[in-house]
Amino acid sequence: MLVPEEVFAKERDFLEGFSGETFVVERTISKKLTRKFLLRPTSETVMYYMFSLWVTSYKDLPIKIYQTVNVFRYETEQTHPILRVREIIMFNEAHTVHSSLSDADRQISEAMEIYSKFFDALLLPYVILKTPPWDTFAGAEYNYDFFTLMPDKKAIELGSVINLGQKFARAFDIKFQDSDGEWKYAYQTCYGVSERVLGVLISVHGDNRGIIFPPAVAPIQIVIVPIPGEEIMDKILEKCKNIKDRLKKAGFRVHLDDRPELTPGKKYYWWEFLGVPLRIEIGEKEVKEGKITIARRDIFKRVVILEELLEEEIKKLFSEISKEMYRRAKEWFESNILTATTIEEGMKIYNKNKGGILRFPWCGKDECGLKIEEETGLPALGHNPNEKATGKCVICDSDAKHYFYVGKKY
Amino acid sequence: MLVPEEVFAKERDFLEGFSGETFVVERTISKKLTRKFLLRPTSETVMYYMFSLWVTSYKDLPIKIYQTVNVFRYETEQTHPILRVREIIMFNEAHTVHSSLSDADRQISEAMEIYSKFFDALLLPYVILKTPPWDTFAGAEYNYDFFTLMPDKKAIELGSVINLGQKFARAFDIKFQDSDGEWKYAYQTCYGVSERVLGVLISVHGDNRGIIFPPAVAPIQIVIVPIPGEEIMDKILEKCKNIKDRLKKAGFRVHLDDRPELTPGKKYYWWEFLGVPLRIEIGEKEVKEGKITIARRDIFKRVVILEELLEEEIKKLFSEISKEMYRRAKEWFESNILTATTIEEGMKIYNKNKGGILRFPWCGKDECGLKIEEETGLPALGHNPNEKATGKCVICDSDAKHYFYVGKKY
Repeated sequence: MLVPEEVFAKERDFLEGFSGETFVVERTISKKLTRKFLLRPTSETVMYYMFSLWVTSYKDLPIKIYQTVNVFRYETEQTHPILRVREIIMFNEAHTVHSSLSDADRQISEAMEIYSKFFDALLLPYVILKTPPWDTFAGAEYNYDFFTLMPDKKAIELGSVINLGQKFARAFDIKFQDSDGEWKYAYQTCYGVSERVLGVLISVHGDNRGIIFPPAVAPIQIVIVPIPGEEIMDKILEKCKNIKDRLKKAGFRVHLDDRPELTPGKKYYWWEFLGVPLRIEIGEKEVKEGKITIARRDIFKRVVILEELLEEEIKKLFSEISKEMYRRAKEWFESNILTATTIEEGMKIYNKNKGGILRFPWCGKDECGLKIEEETGLPALGHNPNEKATGKCVICDSDAKHYFYVGKKY
Repeated sequence: MLVPEEVFAKERDFLEGFSGETFVVERTISKKLTRKFLLRPTSETVMYYMFSLWVTSYKDLPIKIYQTVNVFRYETEQTHPILRVREIIMFNEAHTVHSSLSDADRQISEAMEIYSKFFDALLLPYVILKTPPWDTFAGAEYNYDFFTLMPDKKAIELGSVINLGQKFARAFDIKFQDSDGEWKYAYQTCYGVSERVLGVLISVHGDNRGIIFPPAVAPIQIVIVPIPGEEIMDKILEKCKNIKDRLKKAGFRVHLDDRPELTPGKKYYWWEFLGVPLRIEIGEKEVKEGKITIARRDIFKRVVILEELLEEEIKKLFSEISKEMYRRAKEWFESNILTATTIEEGMKIYNKNKGGILRFPWCGKDECGLKIEEETGLPALGHNPNEKATGKCVICDSDAKHYFYVGKKY
C-alpha cells in the first residue's frame, strides 16, 4: 500500500495523472523518513514491478491477477459516503499481461462482457463510452467507462476497462522471450469496480421508503411476518417456521421476524426500509385456508397464492420484480439521455431536464469533442464506437460518425 | 485508515506512545491538504470515536467488535518479511466496552484464554508476561504479552491483551447511563494478533529442509505420490485417486501429485519444503498387497499400515506428530529460559547460550526492574504475576516475589 516514490514515478504519465490525488507519506509524527512513500491510488506500480520479475517467457503469459484491496485518492474535499471517498475499501481490480496486442484486445472485450453481465444482474442500465484521449486513465492507451445516472441526474462511473498497451511494460521493463526467440515488451490491461456500485444500486433502485434490492442480490430475499390472531398464535408461529424451513430448503434467503414487541405494521415498515423484495404475511386466514399472502416491495402489491405452489410462485414473482425494476430504471435512464443537434438546443433541453446525459452528433475529431465540452461547459463522457450517428457534426458541420456524450458527473 | 489528526490526538499517552511510529499524510504529490491525516497504527481512535456515539446505556454493554484490518507502523528502517513490517496486512483486533471494571477484567482473562488455546493449537510454546509500566501499551492501564523465541534466540511478541481502563473512555467521552441512573465512563479492553504468528509458526517448527506445518493448520495435510512401476501405472494412478477421494470424504485436506514430468524424489523434496505433514507413497507393492506406506515430515520416518485402517491410522499419526512437534518446540524453548540469581551469573549464561530469555528473582518494585534492564542492557519483557519466585531480589536483596524477564526481542 505504501509505494516507494521511485517505483511510483517510473511511468511518467501515470505519475502526472495521479499527482493531485495521490497521498504522500514523508514523516511520522515525530520524525522525518529517509525515503518517501505514496499511498497507492491503484496498484499498477507495485504489481508491475513484480510482473517484471515474474515474466520471462511467452509461456508465462497471459497472467491474470485479481485482487480486492483498499486504495486511496484525494479526489475531493467534500466526501460522499460510499460514492466519493478518500479510502476505497473494496477496490476489485484485475491486472493482466499478454504476449500480443490482439490477446490484450480480446481481454478488453472479455472484461467489458463480464462487467455488462454484472451490471445487468444488478438491473442497472448503463452506457459504455470510450473516454476521450484528454481524459484517458493515466498511463493507458485507451479506456472504456460504464456510466449510469444517479437520481440527481448526474452521471456516475460504475467501472472502467483499460488497455494499457505497452506503456507500463516499457516503464517497468516487463519483457518476455517470444516463441521466435526475440525479447519483446508485454501488453497489459486492467479493470476495476468498487463499493461505489453498491451505493449506486441503492440510489438507483430505492424509493422514498428506502432500499429496494434486486432479488438476485438481496441479502434477505423474503421476510415472513406473523399476523397475531385470536387464540391460535402458536399455530401461526408454527406455520411461519414451516414456511421458513421450506423456503430455506429451496435455496431462498429468508428471515422470520417473530419479535413479539413489534406490531406487523412496524415490521412492514422496517423491512421495506431495508429493501427486502418479498414479504409473506401469515395470520389466521392463512393457517385455515392453505393460502399465502405475499407483498411485493417494488410496487406495494399483495397477491394471494396457493400454499402448495409457494416455491414456483416466488420464483415467478422474483422474475417479475426483476423485470419491473429493470424496466423502471431503464425507462428513467433513457428518458434522461438527451439528444440535440445544436449546442443551443442541447443546453436548453439539458437545463429544462435539470441534468442528464447530453449527446450530440459528432464527426469523430478530438478538436470538435473538446469544443463541445468547452461550449456546453459540461465534462466529456466519451463516445460509443459501435453507435453510428446521422446528420452533421454539431461543431464543424461535416458528416457525423458517432454521438459525443457530455454531462455533469460524480 | 486515514485518521484525522485531531481525533488521533485526543488520548495524549496514546499520541506520545505512537508518535515515532505513526505515519503522517499532509499532502498529495502536487498539493498541500487542508487537514492532516495519520495512518492508523491500531484502530482505537477511529473506533472509539464511534463508540462514543453508540454507547448510551448500560444495556448497550458489553460491546465487542472484532475486525481484520491493515495497520501501519514505522518501527524499523530494516523490515523483515512478515515479522517486522511497515504495513501489517492482517491485524486481527478485538475492541470491547464494559460497564464495570470487573467485567473488563473478566474479558481480559477470556482473551488470554482464547490466545492460549490458539497458540496451543499451533503447537507454539510461550510465556505470558505482564509488561512493565514503562513499556505498557500507550493509553493502557496494563497489558500482557505472549512471548516465544525465534530460532536465533530472540524473543518475539505473538499477541497482546490490553486493559485500557477508562483512559480512552475519558478522552473520547464514552459514557453510559448505569442502572442506577448515573452517567459513568466505560471500561475498555483490546487485544490483537497479526500475520506475524504465521512467520513465527514457520520459523519455530521448520527445519533445514523447509516448513513443517502442524497437521491441524496445514493447508495440505497429506500428499499422495504415485511410484511408477512396470506396466501397472494405470492401476497405481487409479488407486491414488481412490485413496484421495476416500481421504477427502473423511475430511482431510489431501493433494495428489500426479505430475508425470517429475520423479518421486523431486516430489518428496518439493512437499517436504512446503511442510506437508504426511506423504502417502503408492506403487506396485501397495496395489498388490493392500498396504499403504506413509512418511512423516517431522521425523522422516516411514510406516506401513493396513489399507482398511487408513483413516484411523492417519488420525493417530496426526496426533503423534502434533505431540512430537510440541515436545520438540517446548523442550527447546524451555532450555532457553535461563534463570540466574546474580546479574553477573545471568550475563554469563546468557552470553554462553547466545541469547534466550533471561529471568531473575525480583522483589516486585519497578525501580529494581528498571535496574535489571539497565545492568543487563537487555530489554524488559515483564513478569508473570501467577509465578512465584524464591530467594532474594537480584537488585535489592529483599525477598523475591516473582521472576523478572529480560531478553533481546524482534
